[in-house]
Amino acid sequence: MSTLFKHFRVHQVFGANTNVGKTILTTGLVRASAQKGKDVFYLKPVSTGPLTDADDHHVTRYTKSLAKSIHAECLFRYDEPVSPHLAAKLKGDITGDITPPSDGTVVSSVANRIREHAMSTSRHSHMYIETAGGVHSPALSGTSQADCYRPLFLPTILIGDSNLGGISSTIASYESLLLRGYIIDTVLLFRDEYYQNAEYLKPYFTDRGIFLSTVDRPPEVLSNPSDNFASTEKYYASITTSEDGLAHVVDHLDTCHVKRLEELESMPRRALDSIWWPFVQHGLVQGEKDVTVIDSAYSDFFSITNKDSSAGSVSKRSILEPQFDGSASWWTQTLGHAYPALTLAAARASGRYGHVMFPQSVHLPALKLAERLVNDGPGKGWASRAFISDNGSTGMEVALKMALRAFSARHGKDLKNEEKKSLGILGLKGSYHGDTIGAMDACEEGVYTCEWHNAKGYWLDPPTVGFKDGEVFVDIPASLASFSQSTSIRAESLSWLYEVENRLHTPLARAYALYITRALESVQARGGPKLAALVLEPLLMGAGGMLFVDPLFKRVLIDAVRGMPVIFDEVFVGLHRIGTESSSPILGVYPDISVNAKILTGGLLPLAVTLASNDSKAKALLHGHSYTATRSGRAASWAKPDGQKSPVWSLWDPTFVNAISKLPQVKETMALGAVLSIKVQDDSAELFHPLKLASQDEGTLSTAPGGTPFGIHYRTLGDVAYFMTSLNTRAAVIRSIEDKIWKTLTNV
Amino acid sequence: MSTLFKHFRVHQVFGANTNVGKTILTTGLVRASAQKGKDVFYLKPVSTGPLTDADDHHVTRYTKSLAKSIHAECLFRYDEPVSPHLAAKLKGDITGDITPPSDGTVVSSVANRIREHAMSTSRHSHMYIETAGGVHSPALSGTSQADCYRPLFLPTILIGDSNLGGISSTIASYESLLLRGYIIDTVLLFRDEYYQNAEYLKPYFTDRGIFLSTVDRPPEVLSNPSDNFASTEKYYASITTSEDGLAHVVDHLDTCHVKRLEELESMPRRALDSIWWPFVQHGLVQGEKDVTVIDSAYSDFFSITNKDSSAGSVSKRSILEPQFDGSASWWTQTLGHAYPALTLAAARASGRYGHVMFPQSVHLPALKLAERLVNDGPGKGWASRAFISDNGSTGMEVALKMALRAFSARHGKDLKNEEKKSLGILGLKGSYHGDTIGAMDACEEGVYTCEWHNAKGYWLDPPTVGFKDGEVFVDIPASLASFSQSTSIRAESLSWLYEVENRLHTPLARAYALYITRALESVQARGGPKLAALVLEPLLMGAGGMLFVDPLFKRVLIDAVRGMPVIFDEVFVGLHRIGTESSSPILGVYPDISVNAKILTGGLLPLAVTLASNDSKAKALLHGHSYTATRSGRAASWAKPDGQKSPVWSLWDPTFVNAISKLPQVKETMALGAVLSIKVQDDSAELFHPLKLASQDEGTLSTAPGGTPFGIHYRTLGDVAYFMTSLNTRAAVIRSIEDKIWKTLTNV
Repeated sequence: MSTLFKHFRVHQVFGANTNVGKTILTTGLVRASAQKGKDVFYLKPVSTGPLTDADDHHVTRYTKSLAKSIHAECLFRYDEPVSPHLAAKLKGDITGDITPPSDGTVVSSVANRIREHAMSTSRHSHMYIETAGGVHSPALSGTSQADCYRPLFLPTILIGDSNLGGISSTIASYESLLLRGYIIDTVLLFRDEYYQNAEYLKPYFTDRGIFLSTVDRPPEVLSNPSDNFASTEKYYASITTSEDGLAHVVDHLDTCHVKRLEELESMPRRALDSIWWPFVQHGLVQGEKDVTVIDSAYSDFFSITNKDSSAGSVSKRSILEPQFDGSASWWTQTLGHAYPALTLAAARASGRYGHVMFPQSVHLPALKLAERLVNDGPGKGWASRAFISDNGSTGMEVALKMALRAFSARHGKDLKNEEKKSLGILGLKGSYHGDTIGAMDACEEGVYTCEWHNAKGYWLDPPTVGFKDGEVFVDIPASLASFSQSTSIRAESLSWLYEVENRLHTPLARAYALYITRALESVQARGGPKLAALVLEPLLMGAGGMLFVDPLFKRVLIDAVRGMPVIFDEVFVGLHRIGTESSSPILGVYPDISVNAKILTGGLLPLAVTLASNDSKAKALLHGHSYTATRSGRAASWAKPDGQKSPVWSLWDPTFVNAISKLPQVKETMALGAVLSIKVQDDSAELFHPLKLASQDEGTLSTAPGGTPFGIHYRTLGDVAYFMTSLNTRAAVIRSIEDKIWKTLTNV
Repeated sequence: MSTLFKHFRVHQVFGANTNVGKTILTTGLVRASAQKGKDVFYLKPVSTGPLTDADDHHVTRYTKSLAKSIHAECLFRYDEPVSPHLAAKLKGDITGDITPPSDGTVVSSVANRIREHAMSTSRHSHMYIETAGGVHSPALSGTSQADCYRPLFLPTILIGDSNLGGISSTIASYESLLLRGYIIDTVLLFRDEYYQNAEYLKPYFTDRGIFLSTVDRPPEVLSNPSDNFASTEKYYASITTSEDGLAHVVDHLDTCHVKRLEELESMPRRALDSIWWPFVQHGLVQGEKDVTVIDSAYSDFFSITNKDSSAGSVSKRSILEPQFDGSASWWTQTLGHAYPALTLAAARASGRYGHVMFPQSVHLPALKLAERLVNDGPGKGWASRAFISDNGSTGMEVALKMALRAFSARHGKDLKNEEKKSLGILGLKGSYHGDTIGAMDACEEGVYTCEWHNAKGYWLDPPTVGFKDGEVFVDIPASLASFSQSTSIRAESLSWLYEVENRLHTPLARAYALYITRALESVQARGGPKLAALVLEPLLMGAGGMLFVDPLFKRVLIDAVRGMPVIFDEVFVGLHRIGTESSSPILGVYPDISVNAKILTGGLLPLAVTLASNDSKAKALLHGHSYTATRSGRAASWAKPDGQKSPVWSLWDPTFVNAISKLPQVKETMALGAVLSIKVQDDSAELFHPLKLASQDEGTLSTAPGGTPFGIHYRTLGDVAYFMTSLNTRAAVIRSIEDKIWKTLTNV
């Protein structure tokens, strides 16, 4: 991940094409920096082709000749003058080593060099890292340059193309860099009187707030080495010393660096002055130290400012450090941040349509989404149509309106107007369906309330499941215990618990049914609200405290009220977040209405889809429950002891989940899919605090891109801390987080 | 705008760079199409450099030699072998004609050629349009190729770059085309054994669903003309006839064309099967004919399928036609559809952050937005902080919660819990604040209702303003007329009406104040709800029927209830939609809370910002009203008769608005900023129906890009039809729409 040092300015150099003068202009920058008395570091991570003037003479000889502190280095060198991925392949064909260095290796090597050099000097220094070829030339692994180096998120210099066609390649390269979010501090290219690309590009980039500078083309290569040396030196002297030359560019880059530092430092104060945050008690935000500045994000990591380093003058510690996004940015991320294919998909729709109005119209992206969800997604088997809106809460309001309308349509003639306004929801205590008032009214009054919140309905006490002391238990609430004769029931295994169909005729199922019936009778007897719809977060209630409700209870409840419209709020749990595309296969029943959001766009845009059947009668799955187990191959350790497929799986290691549950300070743990929750003894939530600090064992690399030490962002809900990954988080990252949690809880 | 004919397949050819073989491969495609017996049309809109083999020999001579029906043409030819914009400039320097053809001229010329050729043949035919240079090479006007031709939205062939660095330039070019939404049917490039770009690019594009094909490089140019001719012919013969050559590509392009036609034809049925639309009474959607298929959008125009042409076999009419987006896609558009700078800004944020969680965090885009709105936008002078959410309705719920909380905080100890739940809103009849239930509860029950909707508050009858028979009137509702002694008051001018400060001491102001006081007293006397907040759509109530409320009434109302939190719902009217950034300068008072959405993102993404002051006491502007009049220069004809600046302006022509108001079938008209509303006599809304049909006088070009005849999409609200432009809609487009409305209403 990105590193940023006050005293050590680093820029990466991308080319708009090959042969645009990247090495020459980078050398010029190195020399111009040296002439300003800086320590200068030049790094070419990957070089192809035989050693030429470019690498050897331009940089190295100059170092020697001036005896200045210039450090030049190449990390991976290949002889063949072709694209790096091909050079690596050709070398592999000869040496038999057919696996080229991975992106991770290259990125970590570069990050290490940056750290080492930054540590090695206390003077203000400059570093230039020259990529290979054009922005999308393949790296050793075959990934494009722009994608390969993205984890480092270094400020960027784009070398433009001064040849015929160079306007196009320069702008196209610029757009590809923008799509990856890069900060582009300057564009440099050669002057060309004939093609005049710079004359076109200068106003183009000025309009976009980017400084463009030009220098003369280099002289012809001379056949006599000493003539050539003199001619080359003369050239560099001219471009580095002239008034408007590279010395000026170096000053500009320094200014950009300082401005960036100042901006990052100013952001907490400015945020406190201008922003109100959701779900934040503003009394708790005491000052700037309580504000996290997110400079960029990549994969599962934020790049945040390290608050410690903002104090003092020159600190050698990086101002930016990675932080694992342990709440998946409030449950939205599934592919990680800044995922290029998502960016491009969104940009493509924007380029074709912008936003176009929808009523009575249709366009391909909306149609394909609706068809995918209805015919081959969570709606398969029951839903007939999709209603598209723009956030989960709104999607739930749509669902509630549909359900209440369906109920009214059926019972309309018996309902007075006042009764319609106070129709009730049947739900579970701890439910949360969003923060607009209608969605709030479907929940009990609780932590999230406001003046107009008027809870309409009745909410049952749910039994929950989790690991305690290494065993799986069902926790029975007091109101239910008189029916079940027990407050805690040990389960054979987690798999067993989630095989709902097998448990339908157990005594516990009968106890659930009796509790539900009695509770509903008592509502009616008390003259309680007329219940019009069952609204559930199936399997897992997130905001209410990461409550994993016994799926059997949900199934029995749905069966008990069949005929009433049933809404599954799958905003949080849907689309594989907890292992299955929808909850229906686990519960063995379909809803009448369901809502998906968050994951729907990979977390890029707010979008919600409310799916509904044409009739609103809850239907059982015709063929019993069929485990989708789409990703269970990735977490084989959750297979049942007999080796058969389990209905549940998790990216978290069961051994870890189990072990944690045995710690004295832990009450209970649970994991499904990407979600891990840890419930601690009262007032022990501060146990987790050290996780937020970046840490790593001395001398080892972290699993964050670039190997930098990282902290973990996590969220708590009362006495529950939860951690969430994307669906493609690397196993090594998850193992390292488990390790950090373990060490934190056991104070190792 | 895009044209699409069943019998006439058109592709445009973009190059990943100059000198990648664009003309040679296009010529190959032309010849391969001809060999399949098609009529073939080759068009090079702009050509630079002296006549060479490329233009003359490859295409034209082949035409002659084979006597096949190949039509080759170049529209704008320049001698100098440089970028088109430079070639045009150089020619201008010589001829003195310094204005190069505009994009509009080039696009219209190309669109004309397509139409003419399509009309000229009934046979299945192919057309290839070759652009100049790379995707971002400047067009004659200086716009990039990819942007210049975007209005035509033609299916695209990308010629890849087979040279060193060509992987990068091909992918970067592809991404630039994607950002403009182009449909890319194929990528073609030369085989190269050494650089092996195709070996890398083939799986790359296959992964992205794009067919890539390679052909051999052309032979060296021979010095003997007849040898060269023979060698060239041999080459073309080999690439057009070989099994995997261009003949195969031509088949693939045919398949793409047929699939696209089939897809467009299938979309209405599939939409009816899978989608529920908002605000659509589904009983009204009788069948496929009632569904509008939007294939793409550009500027203020949709490109929709023309329903008439889907019937029958081969029709010569274009299947796609432009339709003016007359509701600005439900009030969201301000810069037009598919605006590249917006796409790039969104893509840039996506590439840098993806979505990152916000509570207690800060990142630059959110911070800059908050600061801009608070310090230098609609919040200037009163707001202290911004709360960011994701749609206007949600933004209004946030505002309502803030206002009710502020009221409770002040009166908390006097309020019972039940009273908090039924605190009332003071508003105007006809208000609309969104479709979530909390936002609905702030409005009277009306057209938009649902089971849980429980209107909380009291709504006053507002006086409205508009043009009747060429005069400006204030319409006084019956309940107010007893105070004003009149039901209709003629105003001096529209400017006069909106100079609220000057009207504060008129008899009408006193009548308004009296009506308001009496009404509030009567609410209290009846034991009505405890009113806790004033909620207004300032100046214009959109969904309620495009009601332009007398601004004096709003001002008097705000003054009357000062002390109660005041919310301005500027979701529709804010950010210059009706001429001012916010309504405060017109009304002469600031709100305590305001909401902006829709326009906030130029209509690209759902986003809302609720602005609030630290205290909730409505404040008067300290310096009286100061007209921002930001854009009044664009509509000078709305200046006051004495030539002074008017507080109001419109993109619609006042003469037109005035003239329309005199028509017998029109009750009233009104226009402010981008909005025009026309209220017709009862049951006359069908008068507007003909507007939806594409029409244009014979022999003239329309004002739609490409000059194609276009229809107008508009929305009605009861007896009101409204029309809305973007803020940058060209005056010529607006004039042509006024003309169409005039002709439609007068049956000319």
